[in-house]
Amino acid sequence: MPTANAVILLSGGLDSATVLALARSRGFSCHCLSLDYGQRHRVELEAAVRVAARLGAAGQCTVQLDLTRFGGSALTDAAIAVPTGGADVGIPVTYVPARNTIMLSLALAWAEVLGAADIFVGVNAVDYSGYPDCRPDYIRAFETMANLATRAAVEGTRLTVHAPLIELSKAEIIRLGISLGVDYSLTVSCYQADALGRACGVCDSCRLRRAGFEAAGVIDPTPYTGH
Amino acid sequence: MPTANAVILLSGGLDSATVLALARSRGFSCHCLSLDYGQRHRVELEAAVRVAARLGAAGQCTVQLDLTRFGGSALTDAAIAVPTGGADVGIPVTYVPARNTIMLSLALAWAEVLGAADIFVGVNAVDYSGYPDCRPDYIRAFETMANLATRAAVEGTRLTVHAPLIELSKAEIIRLGISLGVDYSLTVSCYQADALGRACGVCDSCRLRRAGFEAAGVIDPTPYTGH
Repeated sequence: MPTANAVILLSGGLDSATVLALARSRGFSCHCLSLDYGQRHRVELEAAVRVAARLGAAGQCTVQLDLTRFGGSALTDAAIAVPTGGADVGIPVTYVPARNTIMLSLALAWAEVLGAADIFVGVNAVDYSGYPDCRPDYIRAFETMANLATRAAVEGTRLTVHAPLIELSKAEIIRLGISLGVDYSLTVSCYQADALGRACGVCDSCRLRRAGFEAAGVIDPTPYTGH
Repeated sequence: MPTANAVILLSGGLDSATVLALARSRGFSCHCLSLDYGQRHRVELEAAVRVAARLGAAGQCTVQLDLTRFGGSALTDAAIAVPTGGADVGIPVTYVPARNTIMLSLALAWAEVLGAADIFVGVNAVDYSGYPDCRPDYIRAFETMANLATRAAVEGTRLTVHAPLIELSKAEIIRLGISLGVDYSLTVSCYQADALGRACGVCDSCRLRRAGFEAAGVIDPTPYTGH
């Protein structure tokens, strides 16, 4: 049986690196899609290239799409500061409107061209419950829509959107990744990492990641700038 | 009551110009989104700018996203010819994988930033029944997903995806547009229009459009290259 193609949304962060390792362990030929949407933390895109190579991806593609045209997020509008003060009430200002929908739509396009029936995404509902597009109901609704949107609907095939981390804690994700050989020092999670990929240590993403390593009982390999 | 914002997907073609006129007639402040995805018929993007201005849009934004990276369509891969021979069996080669899903996702992002609860799209199931992403089931599934994807899901507002042309014939669309004052000479439907926006007259899109004007009993204002 030939190896089945899958499209993996790979940001360059901890979660999506874990998802790539998981998809590889399940035998998929992994085509990694990264989105350069004008995010502050651009070094995550370099991390995506490194992670794809290290984890044996079949290919990696960075698509350019300037979401700063719309703004509306601390990650795409320089005038909105990245919060460092702990949990927001409601939806965090780092939420990028419709970002996961846009990224999954691009993955859907590539999957259709590749003839891939599987898309993997590293969303997580536990630590990011404030992001509406990280919840199981959303992922299922996207999958339903995707199966009506494409050749699958006409030709009777079935596309699956896998979100294997969705119910895991950050510590569980880290333990899973370590068991699969992920080198987390290659990944960048920080929303305001410096040009060398060093993390600030204080933004929401850094705090969640750091706490995850602590809870997992694993030494945190993240390079920090020393805040 | 302040005017409500809406996002209109505006390709520069006949259908989306009609949709813009319709949304304007319903009193919406119309923010028009066009996608430069590397399509052959690039002059449709210039048409989108003209149509938005003529029909009183509040704004028009052309987003760049290179779908030729994925290919898989006669519109995004120069190696696949645009068909001129009449109806295909199954999905036409001019189908662009997941294009409507990507465009609606971008509209969703902009709508969320604008605080718009309405998105308009000119898809049509009658003349393009071969495109999976032009059917009512698909549009409803996208709307369901969109309402789980965004602030709407958390804050209890409701987003509507309007596809007012979905059940109309091309002739009905043209009669509707004429009644709303649309100048169709500004629009470009041809898949291989020349640099001046003149239509080939023989591709699937031209044939549908031309037959629509005939059936509507309206003089076809389209400039043709003279095939």
